[in-house]
Amino acid sequence: MANNKFLNKKDLAKNKEKNVEKTSDERLYWRAGNMLYPLPVVMVSAVRGDEKPNIITVAWAGTVCSDPAYVSISVRKERFSYDIIKESKEFVINLVTKELVRATDFCGVRSGRDVDKFKEMHLTAIESKYVKAPSIKESPVNIECKVEKIIPLGTHDMFIAKVLGVTVDGKRMDEKGRFELNKSGLVTYSHGEYFELGKKLGKFGFSVSKKKPNRKKQKGGKK
Amino acid sequence: MANNKFLNKKDLAKNKEKNVEKTSDERLYWRAGNMLYPLPVVMVSAVRGDEKPNIITVAWAGTVCSDPAYVSISVRKERFSYDIIKESKEFVINLVTKELVRATDFCGVRSGRDVDKFKEMHLTAIESKYVKAPSIKESPVNIECKVEKIIPLGTHDMFIAKVLGVTVDGKRMDEKGRFELNKSGLVTYSHGEYFELGKKLGKFGFSVSKKKPNRKKQKGGKK
Repeated sequence: MANNKFLNKKDLAKNKEKNVEKTSDERLYWRAGNMLYPLPVVMVSAVRGDEKPNIITVAWAGTVCSDPAYVSISVRKERFSYDIIKESKEFVINLVTKELVRATDFCGVRSGRDVDKFKEMHLTAIESKYVKAPSIKESPVNIECKVEKIIPLGTHDMFIAKVLGVTVDGKRMDEKGRFELNKSGLVTYSHGEYFELGKKLGKFGFSVSKKKPNRKKQKGGKK
Repeated sequence: MANNKFLNKKDLAKNKEKNVEKTSDERLYWRAGNMLYPLPVVMVSAVRGDEKPNIITVAWAGTVCSDPAYVSISVRKERFSYDIIKESKEFVINLVTKELVRATDFCGVRSGRDVDKFKEMHLTAIESKYVKAPSIKESPVNIECKVEKIIPLGTHDMFIAKVLGVTVDGKRMDEKGRFELNKSGLVTYSHGEYFELGKKLGKFGFSVSKKKPNRKKQKGGKK
């Protein structure tokens, strides 16, 4: 049993009251670290003035508010894109499909100081609607963002940014006009590895939704 | 072609210089919204004083700094857990596997005001090491967090929290002592749906790693 400041009688009694069990020996205690997975992995495009645009791959990224829509990305201060984003206060988040996973990995390990990532990875920079930073054409979704807050945390600064607009690939609409994002081969990043989306386990709310009767069966009955 | 403030000659010339193409008609422009996917989906456990602990499911969650390790979760102010986390300044992030997806969905749509989620979903609250908030035993990873900043953004407030420690399920270690997180059936959330991790596409850095010769083949050669 690990050393636990709550292992006094009073607390144990309290825990029992609250149905909190003692931690079992099967649990291993690790030091603080990055173990929140799976995560998104996105290509972030940015540009400063008349320079060539650059791409940085980010997994420390997420949605942080629904309305207004806000996202955050965290970037190491040493990275080439750090100053570009800090000075331009803009970036575009480009979602990643399996066809883009090699380019995504490359843009995460190589520096824009040394290489033109658009050129090297054969990615097409297209103009964005609200920001000077270009969008990546090969990505199914481009999210144009305006930085509002920069929060220094340690190795990384967090850029909190307002979503100005979203551009999607029109070829990915189904016949009913729904955007088939989850059929586009999206990629997720988990504990050092990239994965495709796998088996679908349910829709949001499925645990409480009443089963709808199968109308066809009801109407037609058994033959 | 959408109305674009950059569509003047000067900017087009600039874009051409930077190899930024004009946006094609195949792109659809949407208003600002939440389109950053896939995302993590985690059960966040929290407790206030001697009350029963509660669980809230959060997809607006992520890693925001490597060292020190920081995470963020965003919670609507109306949610039952909002005040609990704001007052206790603590929570535990519990990762989700496919066996937990129904409980995860339930904890996202039901309120702790009405139901004891631990009891209802047959989840086991175990004591955490650094915080009063319990961990969920059925989860492969529990991340204990201390809130340091609360940033109001709109519908959601973002809680930026330092990771104090990580607890993992000892039964998920392989024979070499590596933690097999990516074989535990982790779940990701994308555009309203839950998915298992699918096909592995590569390790971080694979795009630039030199192919290691297959030693067995080298030694044995062709038969």
